[in-house]
Amino acid sequence: MGRMEVERKTIGWAARDPSGILSPYTYTLRETGPEDVHIRIICCGICHTDLHHTKNDLGTSNYPMVPGHEVVGEVVEVGSGVSKFTVGDIVGVGCLVGCCGGCSPCERDLEQYCPKKIWSYNDVYIDGQPTQGGFAKATVVHQKFVVKIPEGMAVEQAAPLLCAGVTVYSPLSHFGLKKPGLRGGILGLGGVGHMGVKFAKAMGHHVTVISSSNKKREEALQDLGADDYVIGSDQSKMNELADSMDYIIDTVPVHHALEPYLSLLRLDGKLILMGVINNPLQFLSPMVMIGESMIKKTLIRRKMITGSFIGSMKETEEMLEFCKEKGLSSIIEVVKMDYVNTALERLEKNDVRYRFVVDVEGSKLEA
Amino acid sequence: MGRMEVERKTIGWAARDPSGILSPYTYTLRETGPEDVHIRIICCGICHTDLHHTKNDLGTSNYPMVPGHEVVGEVVEVGSGVSKFTVGDIVGVGCLVGCCGGCSPCERDLEQYCPKKIWSYNDVYIDGQPTQGGFAKATVVHQKFVVKIPEGMAVEQAAPLLCAGVTVYSPLSHFGLKKPGLRGGILGLGGVGHMGVKFAKAMGHHVTVISSSNKKREEALQDLGADDYVIGSDQSKMNELADSMDYIIDTVPVHHALEPYLSLLRLDGKLILMGVINNPLQFLSPMVMIGESMIKKTLIRRKMITGSFIGSMKETEEMLEFCKEKGLSSIIEVVKMDYVNTALERLEKNDVRYRFVVDVEGSKLEA
Repeated sequence: MGRMEVERKTIGWAARDPSGILSPYTYTLRETGPEDVHIRIICCGICHTDLHHTKNDLGTSNYPMVPGHEVVGEVVEVGSGVSKFTVGDIVGVGCLVGCCGGCSPCERDLEQYCPKKIWSYNDVYIDGQPTQGGFAKATVVHQKFVVKIPEGMAVEQAAPLLCAGVTVYSPLSHFGLKKPGLRGGILGLGGVGHMGVKFAKAMGHHVTVISSSNKKREEALQDLGADDYVIGSDQSKMNELADSMDYIIDTVPVHHALEPYLSLLRLDGKLILMGVINNPLQFLSPMVMIGESMIKKTLIRRKMITGSFIGSMKETEEMLEFCKEKGLSSIIEVVKMDYVNTALERLEKNDVRYRFVVDVEGSKLEA
Repeated sequence: MGRMEVERKTIGWAARDPSGILSPYTYTLRETGPEDVHIRIICCGICHTDLHHTKNDLGTSNYPMVPGHEVVGEVVEVGSGVSKFTVGDIVGVGCLVGCCGGCSPCERDLEQYCPKKIWSYNDVYIDGQPTQGGFAKATVVHQKFVVKIPEGMAVEQAAPLLCAGVTVYSPLSHFGLKKPGLRGGILGLGGVGHMGVKFAKAMGHHVTVISSSNKKREEALQDLGADDYVIGSDQSKMNELADSMDYIIDTVPVHHALEPYLSLLRLDGKLILMGVINNPLQFLSPMVMIGESMIKKTLIRRKMITGSFIGSMKETEEMLEFCKEKGLSSIIEVVKMDYVNTALERLEKNDVRYRFVVDVEGSKLEA
């Protein structure tokens, strides 16, 4: 397909101001460079971060802003230097579309830790133009930040994997937890937490959901297949579970004490904090509570507190293959673009089980 | 040598009450059981813990108490089931003399994490008798907790390795840091910290000592061979060193903020807390300061906070071999037993460079 045949104008739904309300917006895509892939977008997941960016919760928003960083689409044009993809391929794009390529994280293929990484939207690309996300008809992305969606995987299933999925997969893989027989805890059952349960079960773990109330007990045990469910304030059950877990994935986006969860870990157990991508930092208290007995236990039982931040492109590819192999699916609610503002409102109230995916193709976007 | 030829009575220097003052004390050693090694003590290091135990700082002291858990001596008798040691061997005993053998840490040869571990002194042995430490003419210890001192290693050099040495070696080895080319920080320059510099240099690391004042700059750089020295409050130098270290060994026994040190770590960098053995827990503030930006950095840069507790017998053996191979020596002050109370007083004021070792053999202990 020749370059001229592909439309450079596209239509997305953009936020115009901190009200965060999205409406149709026409803009021009860059020419498909030698390393670029031009993608016709089929669907795109909605992440909590989209909410924070559209509403300028972080104070870093630039408008108009087309959000969306869980993008699945079809390749319609590739640059002359692109060999990994051909027209017709179903591909995905996640949180990032650029990195410096020369720093120590980049050299280790950990571009998510590159200090000059470029976000899929609300960022400035190397050509000086704003990046725009996946709530749009099309996008042009450097091939390094495009992944193939495995054959047979439903596009709307693939979308949430590109951010929430890899965010949970990356620490499990990096910290040596991708092996059967482990006992894990998932703290918080939102978009990332529900994916955590799915991944941990697929890895063959015994999974306990740790929550602040009984509200999600049934869905955790029945819908998601968790093995156990504990309320953090249930001291007797917490005592029973003391020293039993190899890891806890902490997805809770607000200030909370870490000590009760550290006590659940066994020797060499890992408390892995997530959630940067899901919550603006000013929502965090300036102090995380870690009491004396945590220090004692950390020292005495060689426990660890650490964190993880989305995942690399390599990990994204691995994760997609893992999901295909294990037949892993996530629980989603597919909506059309004209519902996106309602979806964002509902997301703000945590009224979604567990991820919205916008059917972009079926929404027939018009200016 | 027949069993009857070995004297069961022995003389140690014991604390009698929380004044912590040691004086001669005669007691009876157990018969050398099939798995036991009877050791004539040559010398014994003095550790901060000895101070806390003799003075009942932890509220768990039983008197009379013969302290000392960095014990080097000569084998004078072995049980019928002992094949690893023979009479005349120079051997060492560290912090522990017993463990359950059946728990998950024990199965992993990590007896220091066994919930039923038995301390070298101020504990109760499986025969119901109190354990007594190394400030004595002799001791009887199960062979599992005895290590051979490598040939050619000076006994007074070996002593501090059995606690301070392995306390620093264990995390470096366990956390994958025993390889050249890394950049490390040693926070605090006491007995464990000075050993940390020595070990890290011997492993081929670039070592920065982080201190609260300039007092120890010269000795750190000149006597210990550190590569750099920074005062924690020197913001401009701290900024220069941001994101540069693979690990920091934190030996500071009192309450302090962790955040400034986390900022020195690079991607995957580890802040390793030590010091349980060196300080009673009630000296710790109930809150360790970890600010907002630490959380951000931990998450964003996959840093980690963890701890480590002495080391296993296997690691002790490895560590001694490592020290022999590298010709590693520590800076000690050898004293006689009649100086031990003065030494403990000086240790309390941190007036020692860097470890006292009691020449037990040369002290000709008498009741």
